[in-house]
Amino acid sequence: MTEAQSLPLYPHRHLLGIRGLSPVDIELLLDRADAAVSISRQSEKKVSTLRGRTQINLFYESSTRTQSSFELAGKRLGADVMNMSVASSSVKKGETLIDTAMTLNAMRPDILIIRHQSAGAAALLAQKVGCSVVNAGDGAHEHPTQALLDALTIRRAKGRIGGLTVAICGDILHSRVARSNILLLNALGARVRVVAPSTLLPSGIADMSVEVCPTMAEGLKGADVVMMLRLQRERMAGAFVPSVREYFHYFGLDAKKLQVAKEDALVMHPGPMNRGVEIASEIADGPQSVIQEQVEMGVAVRMAVMEALLDPRRNQDQTA
Amino acid sequence: MTEAQSLPLYPHRHLLGIRGLSPVDIELLLDRADAAVSISRQSEKKVSTLRGRTQINLFYESSTRTQSSFELAGKRLGADVMNMSVASSSVKKGETLIDTAMTLNAMRPDILIIRHQSAGAAALLAQKVGCSVVNAGDGAHEHPTQALLDALTIRRAKGRIGGLTVAICGDILHSRVARSNILLLNALGARVRVVAPSTLLPSGIADMSVEVCPTMAEGLKGADVVMMLRLQRERMAGAFVPSVREYFHYFGLDAKKLQVAKEDALVMHPGPMNRGVEIASEIADGPQSVIQEQVEMGVAVRMAVMEALLDPRRNQDQTA
Amino acid sequence: MTEAQSLPLYPHRHLLGIRGLSPVDIELLLDRADAAVSISRQSEKKVSTLRGRTQINLFYESSTRTQSSFELAGKRLGADVMNMSVASSSVKKGETLIDTAMTLNAMRPDILIIRHQSAGAAALLAQKVGCSVVNAGDGAHEHPTQALLDALTIRRAKGRIGGLTVAICGDILHSRVARSNILLLNALGARVRVVAPSTLLPSGIADMSVEVCPTMAEGLKGADVVMMLRLQRERMAGAFVPSVREYFHYFGLDAKKLQVAKEDALVMHPGPMNRGVEIASEIADGPQSVIQEQVEMGVAVRMAVMEALLDPRRNQDQTA
Repeated sequence: MTEAQSLPLYPHRHLLGIRGLSPVDIELLLDRADAAVSISRQSEKKVSTLRGRTQINLFYESSTRTQSSFELAGKRLGADVMNMSVASSSVKKGETLIDTAMTLNAMRPDILIIRHQSAGAAALLAQKVGCSVVNAGDGAHEHPTQALLDALTIRRAKGRIGGLTVAICGDILHSRVARSNILLLNALGARVRVVAPSTLLPSGIADMSVEVCPTMAEGLKGADVVMMLRLQRERMAGAFVPSVREYFHYFGLDAKKLQVAKEDALVMHPGPMNRGVEIASEIADGPQSVIQEQVEMGVAVRMAVMEALLDPRRNQDQTA
Repeated sequence: MTEAQSLPLYPHRHLLGIRGLSPVDIELLLDRADAAVSISRQSEKKVSTLRGRTQINLFYESSTRTQSSFELAGKRLGADVMNMSVASSSVKKGETLIDTAMTLNAMRPDILIIRHQSAGAAALLAQKVGCSVVNAGDGAHEHPTQALLDALTIRRAKGRIGGLTVAICGDILHSRVARSNILLLNALGARVRVVAPSTLLPSGIADMSVEVCPTMAEGLKGADVVMMLRLQRERMAGAFVPSVREYFHYFGLDAKKLQVAKEDALVMHPGPMNRGVEIASEIADGPQSVIQEQVEMGVAVRMAVMEALLDPRRNQDQTA
Repeated sequence: MTEAQSLPLYPHRHLLGIRGLSPVDIELLLDRADAAVSISRQSEKKVSTLRGRTQINLFYESSTRTQSSFELAGKRLGADVMNMSVASSSVKKGETLIDTAMTLNAMRPDILIIRHQSAGAAALLAQKVGCSVVNAGDGAHEHPTQALLDALTIRRAKGRIGGLTVAICGDILHSRVARSNILLLNALGARVRVVAPSTLLPSGIADMSVEVCPTMAEGLKGADVVMMLRLQRERMAGAFVPSVREYFHYFGLDAKKLQVAKEDALVMHPGPMNRGVEIASEIADGPQSVIQEQVEMGVAVRMAVMEALLDPRRNQDQTA
């Protein structure tokens, strides 16, 4: 990855959210990720950039794709990767997040990947530990590597982000994915629309630079990109859980609703999908879908982020 | 493993079952496995044949020995191994097997090891993904690496498979192990007997080339190999669960029942054993038992299978 | 680690407990561990001492720090590490500890790390398997690597163990940590006091060379080291569970109780901590606390132990 190493130094020690990143920071990470894609496409998909570095995945919420993606990214960079699943951890014995993190920190990891149900968990850890921290999702707050992989997917398909119209549709209220994507897409100059029933919009949506559209027809009209979100029924209190059938009727993406978007509009979904709930199978598996590309770009983005954070040019405090 | 690499190219991209393999294919895998045994007996038990390759173990049923065996096989070949346990996966969020597999596939693994409770799961995946698939057990259908390791154990002890009389005893109905073994042993010219109560025989047993024996005395008479199966009480509906005591009396292998087999008959069990249910401890731990050898051969067979599937001479579609 | 390799050969094949180790054995392991500390402080924290060796962590009780510590220790030494968590193992299918261990043994590991709820489990395995065994905690019996890491922490801070006064406080009854520490500290010539309510003292305490102190004031007076233990409420039968508030009042370490110890007394805790139960947060995070150092020394001690057991100068029986 000599190509990536000639890139400018990423100026931060952590990746806690898209908020706080400049457009230059974002483009730098996307450029690095572009260079990392080829590694996973080789037969011998392994480099030694992070050889001897210790990566700990501390996941308080389970996740097939995010944890796997970080694990493979680390292994392909040559790092030693350790997974900490909460089910088998001292958390059961009542230890606090901070005590768990401090314990892991004392084992001198180079990078800590944290997913937690509470907004701010990653930022809290970053203040306490001596290593780099990557936020892999904190409550309904941010999920920056998801936004970066979405942006990489769009940039590779469309050649740019700026000037595109992106419709983010569905359960905005519970979605850190939506939040990180709105921040990133705005930073790079896209026009962002959100489409959701009013009960699935966060109260602060008016403060974000987005156009709120009450119907799919309005939101998708002329869109370059249609991002569907997972309906997170497991996070909803009983009274507010929409009927799946009604939800699909009004907000599920099917061929008819997609027709108002641009002919070559990309269809995206962060997964895991509820087929027939927020997206019809024919669309998920159709020619406009880049859902598989998103997953592939996820590994590349995570490789890029970890390389950038552990860049040997950074003056690391190994005694912290 | 230069010895193994001079072997003929295995002609298939996947290992989904014994059905579909020619006797030449089977012998080729056994020859490769024979060559792989020595790797695990070295102090430095690691080669670089699969360096930089990504192996994913996707286990929908838990298994100490099979998953461990595949994991060690991959690590000893130098692969990067990732375990996906279902308990911590998106499966909880309702994602389908195919969506999970497609997601993993997009991360560009080289080989996917799948265990699933449904017959045909591995074959289904093989049609969808761009990498090699190994069936590590699909419902009551097949468990090909178990049959291969059993065959390797027999061949190393007896020098051959053809012409031997092998008695497979116990819960044939729920056993993919039995099914794969019957197919393999028949392919290599062994005479196969099955011994089971009629309630534990599959309805299609008459179509397989086996001799059905209602008693251990008949089944074991003059046998070269006695393969016991685990009584899978967890898969049985209430009414058909046999009494353990009665089962052992009629179908459990003890010294007395073993006496009618050849004096040097091998005693085998795929594990985990129910001691005192299908096998007496004195037999499991006795001089005729090759149960530990089976486990050792399991690692060698899995190394051989993965090496054969990922043979660099195969023209792999890295862009799939 | 050329420094460590010039050390005398550790004379045992296993590490089952502190009992059975000579003072020379203990000092040898501490010297090796001292040499190993620097590896984890490097940017590239990886050596190839155990390259190609297979380490299996067989944990029947969950543990964040101990299992992680062994895993990182093995990976940093270049070993292939496999975790066996009981939740996903054949144990559910009723397999015995010995059968599980024999199965793993047949896969030819070099070292088996075992944690088990029964005293004597590690010693039992050591008699059965062909590889080295490390006891990572067996019931209320021993936890030798914890005692070694505590000793290393003390020795690095105080320059010696002999002649120091060490107060071990709290739930001695359920603590393998206390037991191993008492044995080690006595072997190296420290004076050991135990402080606990009589209900949390084992009946055999009178046979150990310790001074039993009924109050913290007596136990801590002039102490060089104060070791707090976790109150293991999950191991206590209902009637004997002390009130947390009352326990903290009498036996919890706070600033006032600590005043009677030496001014530079070390405060230790094996973790995970119950803050406000056995230790006040201000003390756990205060200047005398070496709790984080203990965790760091844990990795170094485990590296040292595994290196010592797998020293190539030892004549290993690879065919066992």
